[in-house]
Amino acid sequence: MAEYQAPLRYMRFLLHEVFKTEEKLAEMQAFPDFNRELMDAILDEAANFSTQVLFPLNGSGDSEGCQWEDGKVSTPTGFKEAFKQYCESGWAAMGCDEAYGGQPIPKSLHLMVEEIFCACNTAFALYPNLNNTATFLLEKHASNALKQQYLEKMVAGQWTGTMCLTESHSGSDLGIIKSTAVANSDGSYQVSGTKIFISAGEHDMSENIIHLVLAKLPDAPPGSKGISLFLVPKLNLDEAGNIAEANQVSCGSIEHKMGIKGSSTCVINFDDAKGYLIGEVNQGLRCMFTMMNNERLSVGMQGIGMAEVATQSAVSYALDRKQGRVSGGPEDVDAIIKHGDVRRMLLAMMSMTTGCRNLTAYVGMQYDISEQHEDSEQRKRAASLVALLTPVCKAYFTDKAYDTTNHGVQVFGGHGYVSEWGMEQLVRDTRITQLYEGTNGIQSLDLLGRKILSDKGQAWKELYCELAGMLERARKAGFDDDLSDDVAKSLEKLNEVTELVIANASVDYVSSVAVEYMHLFGTTVIAAVWMNVVAETLKQSEQGIFEQQILNMARHFCQYHLASTATAIARIKDGSKHIMSMSEAEFELLTEVN
Amino acid sequence: MAEYQAPLRYMRFLLHEVFKTEEKLAEMQAFPDFNRELMDAILDEAANFSTQVLFPLNGSGDSEGCQWEDGKVSTPTGFKEAFKQYCESGWAAMGCDEAYGGQPIPKSLHLMVEEIFCACNTAFALYPNLNNTATFLLEKHASNALKQQYLEKMVAGQWTGTMCLTESHSGSDLGIIKSTAVANSDGSYQVSGTKIFISAGEHDMSENIIHLVLAKLPDAPPGSKGISLFLVPKLNLDEAGNIAEANQVSCGSIEHKMGIKGSSTCVINFDDAKGYLIGEVNQGLRCMFTMMNNERLSVGMQGIGMAEVATQSAVSYALDRKQGRVSGGPEDVDAIIKHGDVRRMLLAMMSMTTGCRNLTAYVGMQYDISEQHEDSEQRKRAASLVALLTPVCKAYFTDKAYDTTNHGVQVFGGHGYVSEWGMEQLVRDTRITQLYEGTNGIQSLDLLGRKILSDKGQAWKELYCELAGMLERARKAGFDDDLSDDVAKSLEKLNEVTELVIANASVDYVSSVAVEYMHLFGTTVIAAVWMNVVAETLKQSEQGIFEQQILNMARHFCQYHLASTATAIARIKDGSKHIMSMSEAEFELLTEVN
Repeated sequence: MAEYQAPLRYMRFLLHEVFKTEEKLAEMQAFPDFNRELMDAILDEAANFSTQVLFPLNGSGDSEGCQWEDGKVSTPTGFKEAFKQYCESGWAAMGCDEAYGGQPIPKSLHLMVEEIFCACNTAFALYPNLNNTATFLLEKHASNALKQQYLEKMVAGQWTGTMCLTESHSGSDLGIIKSTAVANSDGSYQVSGTKIFISAGEHDMSENIIHLVLAKLPDAPPGSKGISLFLVPKLNLDEAGNIAEANQVSCGSIEHKMGIKGSSTCVINFDDAKGYLIGEVNQGLRCMFTMMNNERLSVGMQGIGMAEVATQSAVSYALDRKQGRVSGGPEDVDAIIKHGDVRRMLLAMMSMTTGCRNLTAYVGMQYDISEQHEDSEQRKRAASLVALLTPVCKAYFTDKAYDTTNHGVQVFGGHGYVSEWGMEQLVRDTRITQLYEGTNGIQSLDLLGRKILSDKGQAWKELYCELAGMLERARKAGFDDDLSDDVAKSLEKLNEVTELVIANASVDYVSSVAVEYMHLFGTTVIAAVWMNVVAETLKQSEQGIFEQQILNMARHFCQYHLASTATAIARIKDGSKHIMSMSEAEFELLTEVN
Repeated sequence: MAEYQAPLRYMRFLLHEVFKTEEKLAEMQAFPDFNRELMDAILDEAANFSTQVLFPLNGSGDSEGCQWEDGKVSTPTGFKEAFKQYCESGWAAMGCDEAYGGQPIPKSLHLMVEEIFCACNTAFALYPNLNNTATFLLEKHASNALKQQYLEKMVAGQWTGTMCLTESHSGSDLGIIKSTAVANSDGSYQVSGTKIFISAGEHDMSENIIHLVLAKLPDAPPGSKGISLFLVPKLNLDEAGNIAEANQVSCGSIEHKMGIKGSSTCVINFDDAKGYLIGEVNQGLRCMFTMMNNERLSVGMQGIGMAEVATQSAVSYALDRKQGRVSGGPEDVDAIIKHGDVRRMLLAMMSMTTGCRNLTAYVGMQYDISEQHEDSEQRKRAASLVALLTPVCKAYFTDKAYDTTNHGVQVFGGHGYVSEWGMEQLVRDTRITQLYEGTNGIQSLDLLGRKILSDKGQAWKELYCELAGMLERARKAGFDDDLSDDVAKSLEKLNEVTELVIANASVDYVSSVAVEYMHLFGTTVIAAVWMNVVAETLKQSEQGIFEQQILNMARHFCQYHLASTATAIARIKDGSKHIMSMSEAEFELLTEVN
């Protein structure tokens, strides 16, 4: 069976020792309540709740799935009660504005809590997670009137939010959506259109569902510059803000999917439904990005969370399962953890998952600086680092999480393929994270096109300086010379490649190499952030198993994972020549009868 | 929806132009009936039957799955009738001994036919495939009496075979099986034990099921040297060879799995069941390997087949799906095949799948030489090449097929995750190929430990000479200098790395680097075999779209896929140091509450 203990000791080590969150928050006079003890208590409580309530529903939620009947969606047995407990325990309010009953929380801590929830049950976590980011969007962009009407109930989890972007012909390309909105005389709008792939679009866990819908006004400019954002409730409100009659919103069906079967993925029809503009006309995509950027970090946490479950389960199995002999006679069967190939997979899993967590803690801290620092230059700098790293957290973490869950299956052998062991579900559930909230190809284009090329590598240069500092710290603390040299060389190579790409940027070139660049970037950055962790580890007065484990994970990352950059660099240098030279007729030939 | 046309033109090109099968068979005076026309007719018929009968049952077979009730297993709707047609059309007899109604067929053609059947429906193909290899094993190792009793019905598909190896505690390590066999006075045995993961172990498509079971005699030596092989029928035969009373064989349950849901994966209980020794006492594993080596090639074909479906489906979708603008105004939406990142994935899929098919044709030809050549030295040499390449066909093809089916999902975006499009099923169905018939880790150990180290690289040197010849042919035919240089360098590097590994072989080192070595080996060998295809392509009098497509696939392989060898080499050179240095206590810490 899948096994999971929240990695609390490591999370505390990251928060307190490596990134010194308490001190840094104090410097900024931000989150004054959040001392070490409170942060630890929140992590403990998240671990208790999720391992006791959510984890046991993960397998049953998968086999039962969501059911659609006559426009209503039932979630799997236990989800409704678990969501009630979730809200009662205050988790729905996490990160929301106090004015509406929310509980602000530092982002680095918030992301760790999300990792724990997603590890235990990503299909479940999607419901509150979407609500959380929808709430955040409304806080940032909605009118005061809308905030007053909706936010308190959403923060309490009594009502839940969705994001309605995709249409059947329009996914990565939102500029071509067909949903429309027509202004009413009272300031509201009539919203019409069919949206697909709407997570939590319909379910039985909340009293009302608040859809945030992208649509076009009749006179909107073409493409993505003509998209507006609307709040469209499933059930309308009366003047007192109480639920009144149903809006013209219906759930036409749910998708049968590879995984996250406990999460409802809905077709939602808006048929002259009453809606309310959020933000400015034609600025909908900009508003939606507030939500999407948070969602993208969340998807990264889904990846790390499920990768951690796969890793722990595989380690536990490998310690227990006896098969083959490393030495000794024919009857002296060894645990498979003694075999090099099994260790190779386990170390790849551990060092990657933990490496991604390290980067998350760094991004979380920068996020808090970008929101809380009194100095606007500091805020701006931190915001640019967060913007640079958000597509990496989404795409790199989830690509690597998928590899990790697949390693998990491989360590289990044939048993990994059988449902009862829980390992194949992790693969199926993780697969979606590479696709939704913008495919990892789109994330890579965002990284290379928008975050690197648009500012000629300025944000990268800021990050580079920080990473070089981390490496220097590890060297001073006495980390292995050969490995820190490898990290130094990798940083230089990433710098060179970045300059090369900036110098050679063409649409075809950028598109052809973007995913390779994202992998090169993610691996190199995480290797450098490992150095920060290593430096702090070597400074600990006691060097026990915990410290040794960290150092060995870092070593494996710098050897095994960093070796992958050679391939990425070669491919980026080769560029788009062979990729663009095959004609469409040559592709077509493949699908013809012959 | 998943789309598939058998790649007949390419298969004919490989058989006739590149590998000149007709001429080579004639030289050996083998398979005299098999001229070009007959081979083409068989490919055509395989394509017709499988695309018309098997492909339509692939999706429904997945959603319906097999059902177990009271020891009986029902296969999905349509499977039984399809199997009847399959046998009536003579496919069950393919490759079997004529003495029992079989139809001998050259291996290179046989493997292509298998690819086509597996592409259309791997879950279905497993039933006849296991029967086919079980039949092959009996032809090679069973007594004449057993052959007379069983083979004719098995060749006709009236009865079907299985291989019963795995027990719950014993998978990769068969030396520790607990199943027992005790001799009866009449020369038969009483076989007892519980076998798991038995594909086609129980089903409703044949009158009888013939289990080939590994078990130990009471006085057997420990480990893998004490394993014997028994034929244990589900239903006993009377003296006339007709079905009599049931044997003590029962199906305890079937597994719920990630994929291949139309294939029954059974727990089979043998409870003092009557069995018959095959081959010599304690030589069971050797006999079983006859079957397993053929099975391993078949599993490789499953990989290529499903990868081809993913590739064709993705190409077709990418030509059709409009999203994003490469150039032009906001309303000028392009088909996604114009985007570099989509092309990168499609080319990776095409060039890899076709590259694996090229190597298959080469292995098939060597297989035929090993069986048919009049010169025993030639037979021996070819057999050593087949032995060397069998674990590569199994492990490399299936690892790459899994990547390919995952690329397929990615090209489809969110639609790839939804069941109705058929792409996620390909991922789930392909995942098993990396696990069964020996995990790909075990295959890699077989390649490096048994096939490279045991003969100090002799078989590799033979192969190297052949590959160097292929490269020389491509150069003479005028293939791109830079790419043929890259292939030449890669061959040299593989040679160096092989010598390095031979010089440094220790148990830990070999186990730690085996999978990386397998990937390095497979990629380099396939790049070289591409050169053979390229040489022939450039020689064609007409250079049309077909030829251009081949050359561009080869170019992409030599650029994109060959770039992966840099990482593999770096990891092999780094060896086992960091892999073996983490203590078990450090691993255990990961799973502890903290």
